[in-house]
Amino acid sequence: MFSGAQVALYPMADDFVRIILGSLSALDPYRERFRIETDDLSTLLVGPTEQLFPAMRDLHVAAARDGVHCVLHATVSRGCPGEPDDPICTPIQGRAANTPLAQRIVSALAAVTGAATTGQHVGAQLSLYPLGAAHHMDEIYGCIDFMKRSGVFERSKNFCTTLRGDAGPVFATLGEAFLRFGSPEGHVALDLTVSANSPTAA
Amino acid sequence: MFSGAQVALYPMADDFVRIILGSLSALDPYRERFRIETDDLSTLLVGPTEQLFPAMRDLHVAAARDGVHCVLHATVSRGCPGEPDDPICTPIQGRAANTPLAQRIVSALAAVTGAATTGQHVGAQLSLYPLGAAHHMDEIYGCIDFMKRSGVFERSKNFCTTLRGDAGPVFATLGEAFLRFGSPEGHVALDLTVSANSPTAA
Repeated sequence: MFSGAQVALYPMADDFVRIILGSLSALDPYRERFRIETDDLSTLLVGPTEQLFPAMRDLHVAAARDGVHCVLHATVSRGCPGEPDDPICTPIQGRAANTPLAQRIVSALAAVTGAATTGQHVGAQLSLYPLGAAHHMDEIYGCIDFMKRSGVFERSKNFCTTLRGDAGPVFATLGEAFLRFGSPEGHVALDLTVSANSPTAA
Repeated sequence: MFSGAQVALYPMADDFVRIILGSLSALDPYRERFRIETDDLSTLLVGPTEQLFPAMRDLHVAAARDGVHCVLHATVSRGCPGEPDDPICTPIQGRAANTPLAQRIVSALAAVTGAATTGQHVGAQLSLYPLGAAHHMDEIYGCIDFMKRSGVFERSKNFCTTLRGDAGPVFATLGEAFLRFGSPEGHVALDLTVSANSPTAA
């Protein structure tokens, strides 16, 4: 299954170019397994779904480490019918087709509980889009139920859900939302925003 | 039908707070017809779909007018089943249910041709998500066909399409993509990023 993300970093600082370039070494441990392409709008990461969220977490924490207000935005997708299959995108591990929603919520919660912390506090918001499914709202409501119990849930807003906490469990929650909800072989997209060091954050 | 957007501005400058606050007066002509709520992650705009894209255009052009690299991101949604209906969200004008795809493309092209220019050059990328529809890829491919003929099409990338040109026709193309594709009464979401004054733009 083809999976990946278009990722962008927005450091709110005059020397944003230096901050972005200085954070890219955080992707070095992932380069061997990912295809990475950059233009002026975003950076494409294509590779194993399970490593996508850790890669984005490490990139964002590196860019935010000097205390600059820095936002990461990503459009994440798996199973898009318009994309060629790619051998570097391994199937989602440990998820049999038709696993009941309740059981998937339990597995997602276990994964978030085990997430290591990073020391970087962040706010995040996400919208999950399970496409082409007749019961897409069931999957969305199941995912929201999981997030409410994740330990980093903040609130539901119009069109999205917000999370707040350490970047470790926050990115783990984002990853579980993407991996475990929507059809296992279906087309699922996730729109996510993660903000570090905002002067107006709670 | 409930419609609106979660909008964020990212000025890549040390005085990002001043730039954001200084651009907000661009929303004044729209305030009477919109509900507007802000937190540290985004600003919610709820109101008539047809005015949503002009409002975002004017906000972004105002924030970018001093030449600072500034990105606007929005998660736009209409017909979301989880949202209450709202009398300020008027129905989409001039679109009967079941208008054939080819005819909608012609109407969208006519609207973009008539868009006024702003003097601000931008790059943009968007992903359209028609939800709950059995033929969601037909609507996506129809929308991509429209964008290719819009005059501001740049290229298709993984998971999204990029546009480039004056903010006037670019935001008009984004609005037409959102208004005319996907079921008229259905749930449609749009993830969009617009970038002004990037030092690395083509």
